[in-house]
Amino acid sequence: MAERVLAGDRRAVARAISWVEDSADGLPALSEALYPNSGRAYTVGLTGSPGVGKSSLAAALVGAARARERTIAVLAIDPTSPFTGGALLGDRLRMQSHATDPGVFIRSMATRGHLGGMALAAPEAIRILDASGKDLIVVETVGVGQSEVEVVTATDTTLVVVSPGWGDAVQVAKAGILEIADVFVVNKADREGADDAVRDLHQMLRMGPKQAWTPPVVRTSTVTGDGIDDLWAAVERHRDHQESAGELARKRRARVFAEVQGMVAERLRRRVANILDGGSGEALAEDLAERRIDPYRAAALLLERMTDDDDTERTAGERDA
Amino acid sequence: MAERVLAGDRRAVARAISWVEDSADGLPALSEALYPNSGRAYTVGLTGSPGVGKSSLAAALVGAARARERTIAVLAIDPTSPFTGGALLGDRLRMQSHATDPGVFIRSMATRGHLGGMALAAPEAIRILDASGKDLIVVETVGVGQSEVEVVTATDTTLVVVSPGWGDAVQVAKAGILEIADVFVVNKADREGADDAVRDLHQMLRMGPKQAWTPPVVRTSTVTGDGIDDLWAAVERHRDHQESAGELARKRRARVFAEVQGMVAERLRRRVANILDGGSGEALAEDLAERRIDPYRAAALLLERMTDDDDTERTAGERDA
Repeated sequence: MAERVLAGDRRAVARAISWVEDSADGLPALSEALYPNSGRAYTVGLTGSPGVGKSSLAAALVGAARARERTIAVLAIDPTSPFTGGALLGDRLRMQSHATDPGVFIRSMATRGHLGGMALAAPEAIRILDASGKDLIVVETVGVGQSEVEVVTATDTTLVVVSPGWGDAVQVAKAGILEIADVFVVNKADREGADDAVRDLHQMLRMGPKQAWTPPVVRTSTVTGDGIDDLWAAVERHRDHQESAGELARKRRARVFAEVQGMVAERLRRRVANILDGGSGEALAEDLAERRIDPYRAAALLLERMTDDDDTERTAGERDA
Repeated sequence: MAERVLAGDRRAVARAISWVEDSADGLPALSEALYPNSGRAYTVGLTGSPGVGKSSLAAALVGAARARERTIAVLAIDPTSPFTGGALLGDRLRMQSHATDPGVFIRSMATRGHLGGMALAAPEAIRILDASGKDLIVVETVGVGQSEVEVVTATDTTLVVVSPGWGDAVQVAKAGILEIADVFVVNKADREGADDAVRDLHQMLRMGPKQAWTPPVVRTSTVTGDGIDDLWAAVERHRDHQESAGELARKRRARVFAEVQGMVAERLRRRVANILDGGSGEALAEDLAERRIDPYRAAALLLERMTDDDDTERTAGERDA
């Protein structure tokens, strides 16, 4: 499986991402085999309110990448359901023109059984696409929910998309996604109100703290194709900025370290949940409510039981070995 | 110490809350001793943007409680610093008239050393005030930050305060605190724009989902004293509503259970942090960055080390015993 992913086999890549969605048993071994071959791809996050044209923009980035002879993957994050209707189906149709291009891989992804949620699942899927040899990986979200924002900020460059009318600059401020943008995109720039959106974003940026990198505001139209080259150039400039300052390596290092801490926290949380399932949680809640046990002692008891369970697991493991 | 708190000794209560702030060693024993005597007080959370008059409203509630011969404590949550300047000092001056009243206890609180943050510290402080015999406990926040919202929603009735001009209805929507209100308070209702604020809130409530309890919108003025009795009555109605439906006991039970899970998660997080401190975290980050180890194995290693540390701790404990 790992070999086929590394060779860029489309069906193997698709299956590996399904493994991530389902937290399949084979995943840790696959992850271990792929990891040394990851880290070459550049990752771009794409977020913004529904309706601003993120999918069309992703399709435009696919075209821009192929025109530059770069390979590209698009991972569309769907936090709710494995089978979304309109939006993602629409993407796929729009990207049909790339359907037979081996340099392009498009995939939507849900967290069907991945217990760590999208925040832990997405980086794994990105690493699979990375190891499969794609130069650029675009991660697109449906909306601007908290878990989606978490996912797109765990990329090298985060694009925040607005469009006149739909989710303009004020929406960006309300959604709390002003701070996460490395590049702002005012899409549907052929429409009325685009100037206002650009001006509002510049004004909000002036009000914020001075930073080493000021997010540029790029106007695009996926209808006319205007501004797509500017967007590509803005991403490249951000990449150069980060690479020259050593920032990119630092960010990536911090990201994978945080991911491991997230994995540990998730596994511990699951152990606690296992202990609390099966009646003992109910009994503990009852003891707390009846004031037979205080919160400190209840917490200490749970921690003790976790350690006991560890011993049981390990003894079982040793017996098997 | 526990006996003095139970007797309502002001200095002991103040000191016990300082213990909470500092995560003092004596805290678990104190918590255990006080817990059987908690659960009698009714708790009210008070939140809203800075400047809407929360402190004046808390002072008005103190007056209303004393007029009804109820004892009351006000806990002002300060998420940032143990020594805030203007705002909290202002409160204290305004509440001076109650300074010598043994039925009133006012205290601001920060998380100086409490590792679980305000979300874990506040319930402990509330239990101390509860065990000290106060009938009503008002928890007031400085602003509407995430941790502050967490704290005020962990009360029996949550008041969301707005005022015309400062943080009106739109601010409430932006801050995401529309959903947490059991009662809306339009304070400074003598000012222009109060009618608009009331109307906007009613409109937002109509747009939301139908619920068993519809938050009333109460107009108050702490200058004229208008509406304070209405506010008191609204809180009583919400209390009756919850008590008649068995909701209050359910909410409280779920709250303390969630608190225990939070305590366990916090202690586990700290164990992981301890392992990662002292160089081994740096080494692990390096191994990950250099791709000598993959995230799955890194997480497994950390979990193993945690279990080993448990054994060491326990062995040491057994030796001591």
